[in-house]
Amino acid sequence: MNREIPYKIYLEENEMPDKWYNVRADMKKKPAPILNPATLQPVGVEDLEPVFCTELAKQELDDTTAYFEIPEEIRNFYRMYRPSPLVRAYCLEEKLQTPAHIYYKFEGNNTSGSHKLNSAIAQAYYAKKQGLKGVTTETGAGQWGTALSMACSYFDLDCQVYMVKCSYEQKPFRREVMRTYGANVTPSPSMNTNVGRKINEEFPGTTGSLGCAISEAVEAATSQEGYRYVLGSVLSQVLLHQSVIGLEAKTALDKYGVKADMIIGCAGGGSNLGGLISPFVGEMLRGEADYQIIAVEPASCPSLTRGKYVYDFCDTGKVCPLAKMYTLGSGFIPSANHAGGLRYHGMSSVVSELYDQGLIEARSVEQTEVFAAAEQFARVEGILPAPESSHAIKVAIDEALKCKETGEAKNIVFGLTGTGYFDMYAYQKFNDGVMSDYIPTDEEIAKSLEKVPKID
Amino acid sequence: MNREIPYKIYLEENEMPDKWYNVRADMKKKPAPILNPATLQPVGVEDLEPVFCTELAKQELDDTTAYFEIPEEIRNFYRMYRPSPLVRAYCLEEKLQTPAHIYYKFEGNNTSGSHKLNSAIAQAYYAKKQGLKGVTTETGAGQWGTALSMACSYFDLDCQVYMVKCSYEQKPFRREVMRTYGANVTPSPSMNTNVGRKINEEFPGTTGSLGCAISEAVEAATSQEGYRYVLGSVLSQVLLHQSVIGLEAKTALDKYGVKADMIIGCAGGGSNLGGLISPFVGEMLRGEADYQIIAVEPASCPSLTRGKYVYDFCDTGKVCPLAKMYTLGSGFIPSANHAGGLRYHGMSSVVSELYDQGLIEARSVEQTEVFAAAEQFARVEGILPAPESSHAIKVAIDEALKCKETGEAKNIVFGLTGTGYFDMYAYQKFNDGVMSDYIPTDEEIAKSLEKVPKID
Repeated sequence: MNREIPYKIYLEENEMPDKWYNVRADMKKKPAPILNPATLQPVGVEDLEPVFCTELAKQELDDTTAYFEIPEEIRNFYRMYRPSPLVRAYCLEEKLQTPAHIYYKFEGNNTSGSHKLNSAIAQAYYAKKQGLKGVTTETGAGQWGTALSMACSYFDLDCQVYMVKCSYEQKPFRREVMRTYGANVTPSPSMNTNVGRKINEEFPGTTGSLGCAISEAVEAATSQEGYRYVLGSVLSQVLLHQSVIGLEAKTALDKYGVKADMIIGCAGGGSNLGGLISPFVGEMLRGEADYQIIAVEPASCPSLTRGKYVYDFCDTGKVCPLAKMYTLGSGFIPSANHAGGLRYHGMSSVVSELYDQGLIEARSVEQTEVFAAAEQFARVEGILPAPESSHAIKVAIDEALKCKETGEAKNIVFGLTGTGYFDMYAYQKFNDGVMSDYIPTDEEIAKSLEKVPKID
Repeated sequence: MNREIPYKIYLEENEMPDKWYNVRADMKKKPAPILNPATLQPVGVEDLEPVFCTELAKQELDDTTAYFEIPEEIRNFYRMYRPSPLVRAYCLEEKLQTPAHIYYKFEGNNTSGSHKLNSAIAQAYYAKKQGLKGVTTETGAGQWGTALSMACSYFDLDCQVYMVKCSYEQKPFRREVMRTYGANVTPSPSMNTNVGRKINEEFPGTTGSLGCAISEAVEAATSQEGYRYVLGSVLSQVLLHQSVIGLEAKTALDKYGVKADMIIGCAGGGSNLGGLISPFVGEMLRGEADYQIIAVEPASCPSLTRGKYVYDFCDTGKVCPLAKMYTLGSGFIPSANHAGGLRYHGMSSVVSELYDQGLIEARSVEQTEVFAAAEQFARVEGILPAPESSHAIKVAIDEALKCKETGEAKNIVFGLTGTGYFDMYAYQKFNDGVMSDYIPTDEEIAKSLEKVPKID
């Protein structure tokens, strides 16, 4: 087999991006503004400052500046684990006997095990620069909490993580990684916060949800001097930081003269997908190129494919600003058999708007087929993928098999967001043949959507 | 800070080695031959063939050929996860305020989480080429078993792993990784083999040992048609395959004009250390250069620093050939509080001979200080290291601090063999402050050594 393109394309350090790209700047129709939950008016930086670091609040609201310089301290940290490789999946291609060329941008070569570190280090940096003592956050599957712990330890910031109780119990090792990096990890709902106590009272024995942990972390941030809240997905600032994925991927493809035909990413809150596709979508928005872009979500939490594009709460406690997004309703919780992340009820307002404008397609896939794809991938490409990332693998394989039928040699690029080393409980279920699927009924989704606020 | 040398030096694919280097070829005094346990005569290929793949048996016994071509299929597999980066530890240097320049060769960026994959893929390749159905092996901490599972799944070979029972129970997730790659994992001692049944009878409720799992795996290989036994450390063939670590490291250093002053590696069976140092020791043996080389072992299993250099059994069941090596006696088992690997009673005969010739120094370190070094490293360099690798980190930090006192800008290179993602149980003990140390008494070691056979 002719293998002129390396198995792994690593950029040189001097080829790494020194600016993040803000795709909103190139959007003619911008994502709808986020609203103050009390006044229902668009928020300004001053509204966000009590909760978010000031510089991050500015990034959140800036939809006109195309490029933000990456501060040197962050670039130095990036150099410890980036550039991430763009891998040519020769072995997978051979196994599938497809004429397609498959590439994946692998973000799992760091201790957080995922792309989350790209934004964690940025958020910790701005918190440190503002002279804060620490930050609070929530974590579900645990990747974001781990990433933030690493970033805070690097900048010597206190890190308080509210971890969804079922994850806290099912993933004690994730918790220990965070503790090793000096973070304080609390199972949520806890008795530390008003909202936690209230939820514990209302639903005794609850094992928590992401929306609830967000509410607790926000309350913890606003009730302690010198603390702010940080979030690992959904927000536009996070997509901005994650654009480093797409910028590196594009530079690597350009370096070898490869034009992507199709870009595939998994989508929970949208941070990985948004970051990966940003520079490519930028070209589409500026009329310079065209790509087929596919967001892949779990059939058990199908915000893009079955949700509504409306204003909704970002958290269960309704303390965060309202965002216009594809949503299943802020009370929606995926069924208990759902493994891994991608369980947020809504979707990044940037990704939502791009989807609404028809620049992105969306597909939903069921988890047993996702784990089957994960296993197939692991066996030929070596890497044991995270369940989240495996959603993208599943669709990449489907598309490569379509190419086999049509004979097309498409260039398929997908985001491999992370590794599954802390998800072996789910793999065990799959290996034992006891993993099941669940697709919410129309009635369930309609019922959850009833509680969405009516805002025009 | 002037950071002209990249944080991570990645070789290009065409700079990767295409030959393994056999350091024995440059040794004037060779390691002592391995002996047939029945006849006490040096073994020939024909003696090893019933147990080992023929090509590997040849490599095992060849102490004159300096270079072995790496077959193309293995080089293609290496390209999926190699070259591994040689990392300049700028952040650790800054934290320690040392004038030393610290480099580490990081072998953890693959799903096995360690360097073990380098030899696993070679051994699986030769098994496949010989037309075998499958291979058997033992695993303790689980890295070798995982690596072999990955390699076998790539070449479509059956893989039977005997996993030390206490690890099988304490590390269910390692087991699941192996199962995901299609391996058959059995807790050892099992009731599958004569030796397993015998040990279970003699020591009811035993949680096993590496030496015992080796005996079971060898019996399983020799009692099934089309199977052979493979081993992940100790053997000279394994050091040969692992020379890829040292060859890459040396090429990367040469590329940037860096001359190492000191090379540090952890040592259990000796495969990582032997592989890392081989090309450097080769230069020493040929009188071309000089290096300070330090083997680091756990104080709880101190074969080099407190063992005897004699012929001993390689396994508890005494079915394997005898090797002359630094040994604590084949019945030696580290105390129960010992975490992680590096628990083999002996040491590679190549490393043993180099140590005996004074080309290598050895130090032993205690595990709480090792975990403290691991945590310090993780917090500044990002990577959460394996307990085994952290032995080398501990001594690298010690040496960098000595440079701080003397003002010397030494180039310190150490091997970071892997990641600790499956060792969080041990990290938890450390985080909870309940980790303890144990140093065997002189009497314990003397008693264990009494059972070593008397061979001149």
